[in-house]
This record gives sequence, C-alpha cells and structure tokens, in this order.
Amino acid sequence: MKIAIAGYGNLGKAVQKALEYFTDFELVGIFTRRDVSQVDFCTQAPVYSFEDITKFTDKIDVVLNCMGSATDLPYTTPLLANNFNVIDTFDTHSVIKNHYDLVDSIAKQTGHTAMISIGWDPGLFSLNRLFMRAILPVGKDYTFWGDGVSQGHSDAIRHIFGVVDAKQYTVPIQSAVYKVRSGQNEDFTARQMHKRVCYVAANEGADLEKIEQEIKSMPNYFADYDTEVNFIDYESFLIEHEGLKHAGTVIRNGETPSGTTTVEYSLNLASNPEFTANIMLCYARALLKMHQAKHYGAYTIFDVKPKDLIGENDTEIYNGLL
Amino acid sequence: MKIAIAGYGNLGKAVQKALEYFTDFELVGIFTRRDVSQVDFCTQAPVYSFEDITKFTDKIDVVLNCMGSATDLPYTTPLLANNFNVIDTFDTHSVIKNHYDLVDSIAKQTGHTAMISIGWDPGLFSLNRLFMRAILPVGKDYTFWGDGVSQGHSDAIRHIFGVVDAKQYTVPIQSAVYKVRSGQNEDFTARQMHKRVCYVAANEGADLEKIEQEIKSMPNYFADYDTEVNFIDYESFLIEHEGLKHAGTVIRNGETPSGTTTVEYSLNLASNPEFTANIMLCYARALLKMHQAKHYGAYTIFDVKPKDLIGENDTEIYNGLL
Repeated sequence: MKIAIAGYGNLGKAVQKALEYFTDFELVGIFTRRDVSQVDFCTQAPVYSFEDITKFTDKIDVVLNCMGSATDLPYTTPLLANNFNVIDTFDTHSVIKNHYDLVDSIAKQTGHTAMISIGWDPGLFSLNRLFMRAILPVGKDYTFWGDGVSQGHSDAIRHIFGVVDAKQYTVPIQSAVYKVRSGQNEDFTARQMHKRVCYVAANEGADLEKIEQEIKSMPNYFADYDTEVNFIDYESFLIEHEGLKHAGTVIRNGETPSGTTTVEYSLNLASNPEFTANIMLCYARALLKMHQAKHYGAYTIFDVKPKDLIGENDTEIYNGLL
Repeated sequence: MKIAIAGYGNLGKAVQKALEYFTDFELVGIFTRRDVSQVDFCTQAPVYSFEDITKFTDKIDVVLNCMGSATDLPYTTPLLANNFNVIDTFDTHSVIKNHYDLVDSIAKQTGHTAMISIGWDPGLFSLNRLFMRAILPVGKDYTFWGDGVSQGHSDAIRHIFGVVDAKQYTVPIQSAVYKVRSGQNEDFTARQMHKRVCYVAANEGADLEKIEQEIKSMPNYFADYDTEVNFIDYESFLIEHEGLKHAGTVIRNGETPSGTTTVEYSLNLASNPEFTANIMLCYARALLKMHQAKHYGAYTIFDVKPKDLIGENDTEIYNGLL
C-alpha cells in the first residue's frame, strides 16, 4: 500500500524509519510545511511541500498525518480528509469528540476513511480501558504515565521568562502503583499518583528562584503535583535529555463473586515516537481494508477488528496465535 | 438479550453468577446432560435436559456452551450451531483450526453465528500476542501461566493407579519472567519457564514412590519440567486445594531503531471460571450484533470490534474513554 507522511518532526521521521520493518508499505513522499530546501531531510524519499499534496490524490492510499497534535491536527486532518484517507494521533482527550465529528462529516461527504487518535494514549491504553471495563464492569481502573517526557509540560516551562530550554518528566509514584497492583482501589489525588521532575537550562543571570516558583505554582500543569526543579547548564541539557523514552501502565481491579481480579497492561518504550509510528502503520492497514469495504467516515481504535492490523503476508504470525 | 447456559460445571455456574453484573442478559435456562432431578442446582433459573434444547430455537439469542473443552465442545458446539448462535471456550490450541472449520461450515449453512475459543488463553492472551506482534514485528514474545491449576495436568495425575485426587499448579520461574521483563530475549527450555507443583491424595497403602515416579516421567505433561510432588491426606486436600485462582502474563520485547520496547499484559484472577464467564458474556454481546448484521459462520476473538463488547446501556463507560 502507498502512504504519504505529512509532517516531518519526530513522529514523521519515526514512521519513515519504521518502513524498514513494515515492508508492505511504499512511501510516496514526505509532505512538509517547512521550506523544502531548508530542512535537513535524512531521507532518500521525495520531499514535497504540503501545499502540493492535492496533486497526489490518485497516488496515495493513506496519509499518515504526523503533525503536532495540539495545534496542527485539528485543522490539517479535516483538510486532508477532503482528498485522502487519513490517520492521525490527535491526543487532546477533552476535545476528541469535536475533532471526530468534524473529520467524520468531511470523510463521509467525500467518500474517504479516517482514523483519529491512534497511538498509545489515546490508543492502546484506551483500548485496554475499554476491554477491562467491559469484562470487569464492577471495579476501578488507573492509568500511570512515565517515566517519560511530557511535551505539553515541557513547553509550558519554556514559555517562562529566562528559560532557554526545559524537559519535564512525569514520574509515577511507585507506592501508588504498588497499591493498585496489589488489588487496592484507593482514591488518589493527582499528587499521590504522579510527580513532576523538571530539568531547566536558564539564561545566565536569570532569577532561578523566581523561575522555580513560577513553575511550581503554575495552575493545572504543576500546582497540584510535587514538582522537582533542577537547573542545569545548556550543554549538559542537550546531552542528558535528548532521549524519547516513555512508559506507562493501565491497571484495573475488578470484582467477581470470588474476589478481586487485577488486569494490567504496561509499556516500556525505547522511543515514544517510534512506538507510535508502528501503531499508526498497523492501523493504516486496517484503515485501507475498511475503505475498500466502503466504510466511509471517521473511526477510532474501538472500531477496528484486530485481524485487520496484520499485513497480507503475515499469515504466519496469525497461524498458531490462538 | 436472551441466553442459555449449556453445561453446569464451574464455568456454567460462573456465567450464571455473573449475570448479577451483566444486567442486559436474560437467562432462558440451564441445559445439562446430567439427570436434572439428581443435580444440586443452586439456582432459581429453569433447568432442562440438554436433549430438549432444540425446543427453544426461537427463544434463545445465544447459547453459552460451558461444557468441558477437551471432550465435550468438539461435538456439542457443532451440534448447537445447527440451531443456535453459540459461543465456546475451546482451548486445545493444536486443533482449533479443525474445530473452527467444522463449526464454520455448519453455522454458514444454517445461518447462525458462532464464536470459538473465547476465554483468556486462547482469548485475551491470543489477542495481545496479535497486537504485540503486529505492532512490534521484530522481536519475541513469551507467555507465562500461573500460579494456577492446570486441569489437564491434574486429570493426568488422577488417572494413575492409587491416586484418589490431585491438583497440579503451574508455576512460572520468576528469574525467567524477570529476564524477559527487563528486555532480554533469551531462548528458554520448557523447564526454564515453568515448574509443576502437584498435590496428591493417594489411597492408603499405595506405593507413593511409584506414583511420584510415574508423575515425574510422564511424557509431554511432566517429563520436561522440574516437578514437585506433595502427598497429602484427602481431607486436607479438599480444604486447601479448592480455589480456582489463576494468573498469567504475555510479554513481548520488540525492536525499534532506538532499542528494545517491552509490552506486557498480565492477569491475576480471583477465579479462573468467573473471569472466563465475564469474557464470554462480553463476546456474546458482540456475537449477537454480528448475527444481526448477517455475519454468519464461525469467528474468533480476532474478528470482533472492541466497541461491540459493551452493552447498549454502557455508553457512559465509552464516553471519555479515549
């Protein structure tokens, strides 16, 4: 199947690298909104301006929209759905429904198939929450994220006056994870489930105490958590905080007549964008099958038959799998 | 939806008890091959002879076939598929394909929908192996079972001369689990992954040494494992080994360009049959939706859209789930 990558940040690059393992895909091109001549494209694949993508309507089976979730996807996925089958990783949980409705109406009108919010959370974690809640209707589930970088929280720190760069690690509180894992359905506050560890490179002469105070008191982002702020020089920052590892776990304790059953799904990722890229590619396969079956409109991870995730040539992984 | 329970052992009883939590189901009746007047049915639900089930063809949406997997399901599920939509837990991995083909051909001919091998392994574990292999195509996965009773191994011991009753616990080797969990894709022998712990109540005067030797040397079942045999009196046996707890985990270590990613799905069950009952009920919902959409024939867990597992009234668990 023929795919295009829209957006060439961490995720777009990861999709491209993943194609080495996903040999049933052919990359038609990379579409970027940056000046094509100015970007360091570590690629043999053709690179085009995003504006030109409509010239490729007959040449692309699915567009993998790898642009930034918060600000780009809300308008580029609907835009792409006018002319293409498209898949994205939209992850602003609170407004997924709005995004879904817009993409759905466009895709239905134009006879395309779209899949939104495909990744690990939203995505595989959502799927596991659905399975766990369906199978164990009486109970409670918990999602812990980390250790791993939260892009949104890191961005929030970068906007503070005097900050050169920053990374924020979300760290699950191990005692809470342990309690849940051992079957206790305690009510935790946000502070009891995660702490926030920040590494900040500041300008010379910046008021570090003031920066630390501003971070720790920031509503929604930090005020409700125990937050640790570490100032380091920019050189160390670049060396020590370039990784894209992440992790997380979903745990549900549910009741059956004999007692408490615990189900856990956990991830320990070498690279957040690389894992997300692999998920997108699997769901792009399913998307194309759904499109060929004339299922038009927008879909989520809940609509996809597991069987459709594997490639045509992967029947050997299917045999003996049950 | 209207269901019937066929077979009233541990699983059938668990399905019946689970209906307290699954309020969208109505139990039409329990169908047993035992003499209805001789069995202690702890139930208000009507009990019928299995032979009479064909009198209920218009009254049952789905039959949950809860009979013994090894010897009963291979003929009762095909039989039921002549007249009903039917779901079973068939778990002899090596011959699932044969079972599938037979049930599929009957269900297609008679316009019914069947779902086979629905449980946790085969079932949820199979599903997780599929997801993990699809998303991380380069890597290796491991399934550990236990601590928990293996019915097949317990039965094998019971057939030895001089044995009154026996339970065999499959126990994962923790050092192997630890290695896999920390990202090492070692090749293990069967002996390096699980050990087998047996509790045996023997006849008075039985040759215990001979029984122990027979157990430990039994091909396929025990010869390839470190096996511990404990003889206990029948009274203690009945008290200490009546539980139906089980556990297990599926772990895959897969490669992406940045390194090794680990995905783990694990279960810690208060009761093996009760958890299996809940899974069957969720998939019975999906089965009925598939039947209403005129999808006839046999299906496995790989064919089911996750969305179809939840009940009509469960939209609140769906909202905000992504």
